[in-house]
Amino acid sequence: MNMQNPVFIPGPTNIPESLRKACDMPTVDHRSPVFGPILHGALDGVRKVLRQTKGETFIFPASGTGGWEAALTNTLNPGDTVLAARNGMFSHKWIDMCQRFGLTVQQIDVAWGEGLPVDQFEQILRDDTNGTIKAVLATHNETATGVVSDVPGLRKAMDRAGHSALLLVDGVSSIGSMPFEFDEWGIDVAVTGSQKGFMLSAGLAIVGFSEKAIAASKAATLPRTFWSIDDMRAGYAADAYPYTPSVGLMNGLHEATRMILDEGLDAVFARHARIADGVRAAVSAWGFSPCAKRPELYSNSVTAICTPDGFDASLIPVHAAKHYNMAFGGGLGDVAGKVFRIGHLGLLTDAMALSGIATAEMVMTDLGLEISLGSGVAAAQNVYRHGGQAQRMAAQ
Amino acid sequence: MNMQNPVFIPGPTNIPESLRKACDMPTVDHRSPVFGPILHGALDGVRKVLRQTKGETFIFPASGTGGWEAALTNTLNPGDTVLAARNGMFSHKWIDMCQRFGLTVQQIDVAWGEGLPVDQFEQILRDDTNGTIKAVLATHNETATGVVSDVPGLRKAMDRAGHSALLLVDGVSSIGSMPFEFDEWGIDVAVTGSQKGFMLSAGLAIVGFSEKAIAASKAATLPRTFWSIDDMRAGYAADAYPYTPSVGLMNGLHEATRMILDEGLDAVFARHARIADGVRAAVSAWGFSPCAKRPELYSNSVTAICTPDGFDASLIPVHAAKHYNMAFGGGLGDVAGKVFRIGHLGLLTDAMALSGIATAEMVMTDLGLEISLGSGVAAAQNVYRHGGQAQRMAAQ
Amino acid sequence: MNMQNPVFIPGPTNIPESLRKACDMPTVDHRSPVFGPILHGALDGVRKVLRQTKGETFIFPASGTGGWEAALTNTLNPGDTVLAARNGMFSHKWIDMCQRFGLTVQQIDVAWGEGLPVDQFEQILRDDTNGTIKAVLATHNETATGVVSDVPGLRKAMDRAGHSALLLVDGVSSIGSMPFEFDEWGIDVAVTGSQKGFMLSAGLAIVGFSEKAIAASKAATLPRTFWSIDDMRAGYAADAYPYTPSVGLMNGLHEATRMILDEGLDAVFARHARIADGVRAAVSAWGFSPCAKRPELYSNSVTAICTPDGFDASLIPVHAAKHYNMAFGGGLGDVAGKVFRIGHLGLLTDAMALSGIATAEMVMTDLGLEISLGSGVAAAQNVYRHGGQAQRMAAQ
Amino acid sequence: MNMQNPVFIPGPTNIPESLRKACDMPTVDHRSPVFGPILHGALDGVRKVLRQTKGETFIFPASGTGGWEAALTNTLNPGDTVLAARNGMFSHKWIDMCQRFGLTVQQIDVAWGEGLPVDQFEQILRDDTNGTIKAVLATHNETATGVVSDVPGLRKAMDRAGHSALLLVDGVSSIGSMPFEFDEWGIDVAVTGSQKGFMLSAGLAIVGFSEKAIAASKAATLPRTFWSIDDMRAGYAADAYPYTPSVGLMNGLHEATRMILDEGLDAVFARHARIADGVRAAVSAWGFSPCAKRPELYSNSVTAICTPDGFDASLIPVHAAKHYNMAFGGGLGDVAGKVFRIGHLGLLTDAMALSGIATAEMVMTDLGLEISLGSGVAAAQNVYRHGGQAQRMAAQ
Repeated sequence: MNMQNPVFIPGPTNIPESLRKACDMPTVDHRSPVFGPILHGALDGVRKVLRQTKGETFIFPASGTGGWEAALTNTLNPGDTVLAARNGMFSHKWIDMCQRFGLTVQQIDVAWGEGLPVDQFEQILRDDTNGTIKAVLATHNETATGVVSDVPGLRKAMDRAGHSALLLVDGVSSIGSMPFEFDEWGIDVAVTGSQKGFMLSAGLAIVGFSEKAIAASKAATLPRTFWSIDDMRAGYAADAYPYTPSVGLMNGLHEATRMILDEGLDAVFARHARIADGVRAAVSAWGFSPCAKRPELYSNSVTAICTPDGFDASLIPVHAAKHYNMAFGGGLGDVAGKVFRIGHLGLLTDAMALSGIATAEMVMTDLGLEISLGSGVAAAQNVYRHGGQAQRMAAQ
Repeated sequence: MNMQNPVFIPGPTNIPESLRKACDMPTVDHRSPVFGPILHGALDGVRKVLRQTKGETFIFPASGTGGWEAALTNTLNPGDTVLAARNGMFSHKWIDMCQRFGLTVQQIDVAWGEGLPVDQFEQILRDDTNGTIKAVLATHNETATGVVSDVPGLRKAMDRAGHSALLLVDGVSSIGSMPFEFDEWGIDVAVTGSQKGFMLSAGLAIVGFSEKAIAASKAATLPRTFWSIDDMRAGYAADAYPYTPSVGLMNGLHEATRMILDEGLDAVFARHARIADGVRAAVSAWGFSPCAKRPELYSNSVTAICTPDGFDASLIPVHAAKHYNMAFGGGLGDVAGKVFRIGHLGLLTDAMALSGIATAEMVMTDLGLEISLGSGVAAAQNVYRHGGQAQRMAAQ
Repeated sequence: MNMQNPVFIPGPTNIPESLRKACDMPTVDHRSPVFGPILHGALDGVRKVLRQTKGETFIFPASGTGGWEAALTNTLNPGDTVLAARNGMFSHKWIDMCQRFGLTVQQIDVAWGEGLPVDQFEQILRDDTNGTIKAVLATHNETATGVVSDVPGLRKAMDRAGHSALLLVDGVSSIGSMPFEFDEWGIDVAVTGSQKGFMLSAGLAIVGFSEKAIAASKAATLPRTFWSIDDMRAGYAADAYPYTPSVGLMNGLHEATRMILDEGLDAVFARHARIADGVRAAVSAWGFSPCAKRPELYSNSVTAICTPDGFDASLIPVHAAKHYNMAFGGGLGDVAGKVFRIGHLGLLTDAMALSGIATAEMVMTDLGLEISLGSGVAAAQNVYRHGGQAQRMAAQ
Repeated sequence: MNMQNPVFIPGPTNIPESLRKACDMPTVDHRSPVFGPILHGALDGVRKVLRQTKGETFIFPASGTGGWEAALTNTLNPGDTVLAARNGMFSHKWIDMCQRFGLTVQQIDVAWGEGLPVDQFEQILRDDTNGTIKAVLATHNETATGVVSDVPGLRKAMDRAGHSALLLVDGVSSIGSMPFEFDEWGIDVAVTGSQKGFMLSAGLAIVGFSEKAIAASKAATLPRTFWSIDDMRAGYAADAYPYTPSVGLMNGLHEATRMILDEGLDAVFARHARIADGVRAAVSAWGFSPCAKRPELYSNSVTAICTPDGFDASLIPVHAAKHYNMAFGGGLGDVAGKVFRIGHLGLLTDAMALSGIATAEMVMTDLGLEISLGSGVAAAQNVYRHGGQAQRMAAQ
């Protein structure tokens, strides 16, 4: 009976029945005519979710980290300088990858819980009159802290600075859950994976490239084969793949985009916001605060919750797994032991969300935190109630 | 996203992953050697759950109502008299079936919410000096009212009365969830289905016969073919079936009994009691009462909850389905509109149970009932908390 | 690796992926609004496959044998006379059921391998000037012998005789695989199951009633509850069911009818005929004959194959299961040991059919029958070849 | 009805039911205690299949091509020289990857259909007195030509030459299907994937490193993050993963190794040899030859079949897919249009193999090749027959 509770980690998310079934395919020949519609169906769907109409989109049979590697190796040269802020574990890791690939990283250190400092980016870019900086890296949603940053603002800052660097965006835990506008925000490379907003298991890295990024790839000399967008492009043109694809997972991705687009992107984002509001209401009822410093930084896909000083927050996911068979996220890096995380992206009904909040209350009480059992639930119930509809029903 | 919430109807229950997979078999030949181990594996497992070592057990490819029909047609003759109490919709329906089959029913009318009146049964049997009564029908757990009756007490009453009638027991919503002792309680026919304590979908009627009931079947003249235990017995002896079986569902039943017996019957019953205690604590926190009149009648598989006078309880499952995609049971028959029901049998974790309680609170509040949001959840959390373990952990 | 070969029994058939997935549902509340569309979707689909526009159709959660019981108990009275021919095991069994239900059977004995003797039926009905005969029972496709009978001819004979008996037809192994016209053929009750032409597992008995049969049900006094069409009708009118339905299997049935109707009934029948032609070509190449005496009796859903005198045909399915993990049908009743059967209904591609034929050849050769390996395959390949298309392709 | 025929491509293979179910998991938290046993279960199982007791084994969430990249980037430096033979499309592609990563490839050109020229390797290594060559690349089974090469002979040649280069082996289409001895053959890096001998879908690259290869990785300067074995090792030590794993697929891999080891490696290899013998008997009966030049080069996982001069073999898979819904492999690179391929690895019963052979016969006949229908089937049946057992049965 291990696997019946929903998970509350910030990805992989709970998987809808229909997507599990779409992925669980018997083997089909990926060199036969069956494959083309699956491939292009997934690509077209993804582009609509990214809101990308220009440039090209690629799907790699790998987990999301591979998407970062595809973004870098297809656009940059050894020794290039990139500009990035470090405001959480995932921005930290991307920076680390850059360094391993021989890139020079101009790093902006930011308190964890803060967003990307747009003004500081602008100043640095203004000062880079030689155009040394080849790319700006931005983590749209820092999964470690539950902070969503102002990517459109960053683009405007780049424009104001008149800088020509590429804008590479990690949208792993935002795309499909929160507004994301590839074209409109002037993004050059967007990276995501199958296991977050697309509600599938891990195994696909999804990367959108602008025309400018594609042009950069012609000259980029970082070595690549598995991550080569040239090989991918050649394959796609023939309804094929440069090596063996994960056909079932791509079929699931096609179906996932159909579900998302049928519901409507705005409705999907509103649903995430509503579920997140309930979680945040619970946090407030417990007397705690999100790690994200200000409301405009609150992520609708994950909330990192600061526990009181002196309490080891890392006990929460351990105790929850052991005694309640429920998965929450722990704190990572600079906030390890200080926060625990409730993921609330992908498939999550009101009832599921309440089960997570209620279990978190039991866990915290077991561990000696002084919260009132049911208090967070009540706060979230007030957010989730369909009282309005009920009253309208009654009035009819 | 319709089917992701757990259900809170008193069967069919939530189905464990492993059982869904055990049922979802490709076609196998039920006349090949593959079938015998599935058939006998299921039968042996069921006998252990029934605690039946004598007599014989049969599995029909039909839903539970068919089990009632198998019980009657294999043991009785047209015109026979049976004794039965009517204390809920399911005892009512079994009586109705008897009448359709030309049996004379001596009916004891009991308030819904009460259990079987053992003393009254005893008196009637004592008075039946001619042995007119051929069978006593007992509904162990009245699913409509959430009342569990004293079947061992009824057997003792029959013994005290020195009456030789058969004891036919409907254990549909008790077997696998609450203590049930086929041998020890002197049961002659026990009826259940796949979709309750066995946590599968509907489609199998499971019926245990004592040696005495089998002896009665030799003379019983009610017509039967599909329900004939003689045909079943002949089939089983050849590792076969008298007609086409539901092989996948029987494979699931085999696996279900393995799960139950691996956990241990006592542990399974304790788990049901604990989950039910939480639900009842919530009911009490809301200021409501179970339909079952006294604690010893409280069912651990379903709770029927009385709502205040003047409130139409039938709105609750309708509103819950419509606005929260969650399934609760409504009131049936004499208690229609007066109660709603929370099923809590089969697979149900603490977190799942809390999601049902929390949703019921929102529904009731939406519909104007004055309950305090989170109050039932808090009461149940106190039952479900693993605080003890946590303290022990801390002490180590 | 037990379950990867296709089965060649005459039902249950191989199940398409999409139908396995349609059946494998999480639990839904059958009293909620989710159920109505599944129920009525399945009923509407079934009616289109039956070609039934009048009367009513019912789906019982039981295997096909139950459908026979529903046909009898809803239309007849104890002691009624029915007219039936016995030309195989399944017609034999239905007659046996009639006798157990206290009906008088006027039985026409026919050699196994022959069809229903329409002229003899006509004569008997002409002679029954008192109208003693209340129903004529006809097995459309005798699964034991692979014989399809002339049901429309039988209806005409009844009409010519001016007899008012009901016409009850067992279409278990014909409906969905061979032409069947409920309305046009003047059928009063048609019985089938989920596990043949509908390509699902066993568990649903499907029964169509004409208006005349429904009228008869008002007066019919055979006892019934589980099989009562009155209870079913009342349920359906409320988008509900008289007891717990097999929701997943009904969802599968809905989907199965959608598949069949999308392909088109004529195309489905033509596909069955083509696959059957290949099997019969193989039989002929082996130098054997079908049990069915004449081509117009050849069934397109199953072929019973006569093996040479002195050979025990029952070894074939046993050897095939043991050494090749493949399921064929054995001979039943009067033809036990004389025939073996290849089922070819439901899902079966050319390649699957050839694998069965090739395996049968190995089995027969292993057992000492003198057939030429590959000979039956070659004969079937000639039937299955798409040479025509290929030539047309080349010509374009 | 698209997906019911087995596939005959040389991977991804047909997937056993039990493995599809093992992969189709609900989401579990890969940072919880549930993950460790899945990870280490898969690793331990893989090591037993590789026959690797020393060094370390890594599983990447990517398709097999990624395994090549992991092999190179963890052991080599930019500018290093590697020695490789080009005898098919997959050896060709690995060489291409080396060049993209800035390695100098000393390439031995070999006719496609030949194996690795062990003597020539030896001579070159003897001549490399400076130790310029850092690694020897060997494709154990060339999937494009159906040629298995003498890897243990190559190791002996390296030893005779007294050369210290690393031996990197592509075992993608041999491991799990044909004998492979990591330890005994002195392999330094072995690469495979989930979608061949392990019978799963694509999505895992599996790489074994010897102690010597691990030592080399400490100094290797090719850039890597996703493919870093250091990050993997650190993760594994904590029962964790450096990024998000494909948990379901790893659970499937664990189960796949359990299946393989339960059957026994020798039995698995014997089964592959027997199935392959049947396919080769069919090829011979058709009057054609394998692309592999000599019997000792014949692969037991795939046969590339030379078609007559003047015939375009690429029509075969196209026609098979279009008219028979069956997947065969086409010719690649130097043998495009000259061969077609029948994959016969992973799950394949006798009956499944015969269905592929029979379908190939129809396709070839449709396309005008003069082969005798049924001839290849008969030849394979003679290989597959269990006549021996049957005779022994009869003798008892």
